[in-house]
Amino acid sequence: MDELAKMPGIGPKTAQRLAFYILKIPAQEALSLAAAIQDVKEKVRYCSTCFNLTEEDPCAICRDATRDSATICVVEEANDLLALEKTNEYRGLYHVLGGALSPLDGIGPDDLHIDELLDRLPQGIEEVILATNPNVEGEATALYLRKLLKPFEISVTRVARGLPVGGDLEYADQATLTRALEDRVAL
Amino acid sequence: MDELAKMPGIGPKTAQRLAFYILKIPAQEALSLAAAIQDVKEKVRYCSTCFNLTEEDPCAICRDATRDSATICVVEEANDLLALEKTNEYRGLYHVLGGALSPLDGIGPDDLHIDELLDRLPQGIEEVILATNPNVEGEATALYLRKLLKPFEISVTRVARGLPVGGDLEYADQATLTRALEDRVAL
Repeated sequence: MDELAKMPGIGPKTAQRLAFYILKIPAQEALSLAAAIQDVKEKVRYCSTCFNLTEEDPCAICRDATRDSATICVVEEANDLLALEKTNEYRGLYHVLGGALSPLDGIGPDDLHIDELLDRLPQGIEEVILATNPNVEGEATALYLRKLLKPFEISVTRVARGLPVGGDLEYADQATLTRALEDRVAL
Repeated sequence: MDELAKMPGIGPKTAQRLAFYILKIPAQEALSLAAAIQDVKEKVRYCSTCFNLTEEDPCAICRDATRDSATICVVEEANDLLALEKTNEYRGLYHVLGGALSPLDGIGPDDLHIDELLDRLPQGIEEVILATNPNVEGEATALYLRKLLKPFEISVTRVARGLPVGGDLEYADQATLTRALEDRVAL
């Protein structure tokens, strides 16, 4: 129970419920849970190219020859990459920074995989899409990267910020509405 | 209570609570509520230019000489106009369509104030911003208007659709992520 309660979102009561569940299930099922936990720590590591989580290095995306190797989409974390992959829209490569610039939390450029991104640029990269989060840290990181990438002859783009699709103008917050007006696109 | 219960979002229990509240307050307060209801029905009407709700025709926005009279922002309803006004970003004029195209609900172009919009264009309009809702009906209406506006020599723009400001990439829905990637902007 003490071990389970260390996990995020699991308080003492849930830990107790989980512990009793583990006691109740057949030994084999409990052991396969233990094995999965061992496995993930042994096998899953970071891709040495894009810093995505992977069992094999380089990761499946970096290895995939059918993907557009001239485009890199820069994201903060591996789960952002997963969210983008689920859209089935993007066919280029990724680069996971491992976070965003946040001086208050003591996270500076050296704590992110920025040098590794710059090292990848000479490999025929034509476009870098900055897909850091649309919040303060993400925007600051995007601006910092734009400045760094300026000397290179590549197109640097930022994912669109605006009204979420399927929503209602009336319920959008003011910052989003302001951005949607500023970034309006010609039809 | 029967009259109160006719209002949206007010069920029989709330109607009862409101009725007892009205019985309890001083006569003057109750009468001023009644007067306000009478007033709004007598005084508030549609602006004959932009179809915003107003007490005076033309409305305060259409009358305001300090606003940019070369830009019209097209919205579905008057509450969308209010949302945009709250951002304090937009200084042009508006045009309220009175809804969006919706064949299933029997709402066609003739049910919206589209002819009146076209009539306003010769008055030195340089840009029409289509700010209909980012949902199916709103997008269809924007596409229809773009087609109608093409013969005129004016710039037609659409409010940006993309990631809401302050949010997290991971929590964006797939349609919004797809749009954010497609509409990425050069930095």
